[in-house]
Amino acid sequence: MTETSFNFSLEFTVRDYECDLQGVVNNANYQHYLEHARHEFLVSKGVSFSRLHDEGIDLIVSRVEIDYKYPLRSRDRFVVRLNIERAGNVRLLFIQEICRMPDEKLIASARVTGVATKNGKPVSPANIVIQRIEVATPEVIAGR
Amino acid sequence: MTETSFNFSLEFTVRDYECDLQGVVNNANYQHYLEHARHEFLVSKGVSFSRLHDEGIDLIVSRVEIDYKYPLRSRDRFVVRLNIERAGNVRLLFIQEICRMPDEKLIASARVTGVATKNGKPVSPANIVIQRIEVATPEVIAGR
Amino acid sequence: MTETSFNFSLEFTVRDYECDLQGVVNNANYQHYLEHARHEFLVSKGVSFSRLHDEGIDLIVSRVEIDYKYPLRSRDRFVVRLNIERAGNVRLLFIQEICRMPDEKLIASARVTGVATKNGKPVSPANIVIQRIEVATPEVIAGR
Amino acid sequence: MTETSFNFSLEFTVRDYECDLQGVVNNANYQHYLEHARHEFLVSKGVSFSRLHDEGIDLIVSRVEIDYKYPLRSRDRFVVRLNIERAGNVRLLFIQEICRMPDEKLIASARVTGVATKNGKPVSPANIVIQRIEVATPEVIAGR
Repeated sequence: MTETSFNFSLEFTVRDYECDLQGVVNNANYQHYLEHARHEFLVSKGVSFSRLHDEGIDLIVSRVEIDYKYPLRSRDRFVVRLNIERAGNVRLLFIQEICRMPDEKLIASARVTGVATKNGKPVSPANIVIQRIEVATPEVIAGR
Repeated sequence: MTETSFNFSLEFTVRDYECDLQGVVNNANYQHYLEHARHEFLVSKGVSFSRLHDEGIDLIVSRVEIDYKYPLRSRDRFVVRLNIERAGNVRLLFIQEICRMPDEKLIASARVTGVATKNGKPVSPANIVIQRIEVATPEVIAGR
Repeated sequence: MTETSFNFSLEFTVRDYECDLQGVVNNANYQHYLEHARHEFLVSKGVSFSRLHDEGIDLIVSRVEIDYKYPLRSRDRFVVRLNIERAGNVRLLFIQEICRMPDEKLIASARVTGVATKNGKPVSPANIVIQRIEVATPEVIAGR
Repeated sequence: MTETSFNFSLEFTVRDYECDLQGVVNNANYQHYLEHARHEFLVSKGVSFSRLHDEGIDLIVSRVEIDYKYPLRSRDRFVVRLNIERAGNVRLLFIQEICRMPDEKLIASARVTGVATKNGKPVSPANIVIQRIEVATPEVIAGR
C-alpha cells in the first residue's frame, strides 16, 4: 500500500497487558487499536458519536478483514493509519494499516466496513457522516 | 475463610486470552471475574441493573481490595464465591473469594464495597437493593 | 450456512464487562469468543499449544474476516460453532459462526486462517496439526 | 494526598472500548492503567522484566486496594502518578493516584503491593529491585 497516502494516523505504544501467553499482542487487541484510530479520526473531523446518537444515528461496523503480517511485542511503538472511502450508497470503507515504529515494518492491514443506521435502519452515510467529513476535508474521500 | 458459608458461587474456566506475558491470568481480569459473579448474583435475586437505572438508581463500586494468593493459568477451572453484608447505612460489602477447582486452592480473596446512588447521590441500599435481596433470601445478609 | 454441519460448538453467556458504550458487545470481543472456541476445539482433539510449542511449532492467525450481522447484548446466551478445512499446503481455515440462543439468530460469521510455523517458518499443517486432528476425527476435515 | 510529591507520572486518554454499559470506564481497566504506569516507571529506572526473568526473578502483585472517587468517561484525559516505598523486607508498596486532566479531579487512589520472587520464593526486593532503582534515583524511595 506504498502509493496510498493516508489521511489520518495515530501513534501508540504496546502495553504489557495487551500481550498474551505467546508473548505478542493478542489478535483481538489489534481491533481495539483500529477502532480507537477510527474514533479519533471521526472526532478530529467533528463527527461526534454522542451527538449523532442523540439524532438517532449510530455508526456500526458490519465487516472486518485483518491480515496479520508480523506480531507486535511488549513496548513496541506503532502507528495506525487510515483512509475512508464510500462503498456503495450506505457503507463506508476504512482502509487501515498498522506499522511498527520507527522501522515502518507492516504489522497488519485491515479493511473495515461501517454502516450508518438511523433509528435502526441503514441510511446513506453520504447524507450524514461523509457529508460532515467532506465539509471539513474534501480530499479524504476523493478515492484512491 | 473456611468457616464462612457463601451464598452464591459461579464457575468459570480460564480463557487463553485472559493470560498475559507471564503465562498467568492478568491481575485486572480477576476484577472481571469478581464483577461478573456479583452481577449474576444480583440478577439471581431479581435485582436488575437496567430496571434500577430506569428508576434513577445506579450501583457503583467505591472500593476494591484484592489479595492475590496464587495465580490461575491457562484452562484452569475455578469458582467465584460471594457473600453480601451491609456496611453502614449506604454501603454494601461483597466478600468474595476465587478458588481453583477441583483442589479448592485459594487463588484470591476480595472485599468490594458498593454504593447505591439515586440521581447521583448515595442512598441507603437498605431501602433499595438490600430490601429486594431480603425479600428473596433473608439469609443472605444475616451477617456472618 | 444452514447446510453446513459444524464439528464443534461451545456455549457462552455475555458478561456485562464485554459490552461497551453502545450497550452491545464490543466488536473486538467477538474475536475473543472465536479464539476461545478454536482453542477449546484443538484441545478437545488433543492438540496442545504448549506441547507443540516445546516442539518448536506455533499456530498463528494470519487472517480474520468477520461479518457482524446483529449485536449481542448483556446476558445473551450464544453458541460459537466451527469447522476446519485445509487451505492449500500450509494453511488451515476455520469457518465459524456465532448464534444467539435459543432463537438461533445469526450474530456473526467468520473465516479465520491459521498457519503452523516451525522455528518461525510456515510448515505444512497436514503433517503436524491436521494429522493429529485426523487421527482423532477423520470426519472433521472431510470438507463440505 | 496533596502533600505527596510523586516520582513518576504518565498521561493517558480514555479509549471508547474501555468504557462499559454505564458509559464510564470499567472498573477493571483502572488496574490496567495502574499496571501500565508501574511498568513504564520500572523500565524508566532500568528495571527490565525480561532481564529479571532471565535471572529467575519475577515481580508479582500480592495486593491491590483501589478507592474509586469519580468515574472517567469517553475521551477524558488523565494522568497516573506513583511513588514507591519499601514495606518490610520483601515487599514494595506503590502509592498511585489517577487524576483527570486538566482539572486535576481525583478519580482513584490506589495502594499496590508487589513482591519479588526468585525461583518462586519471595526475596528481599532491597537486594534486587530497589537496589537498581536506588542506583538510578536515590530520592525515589526516601519515604514520605
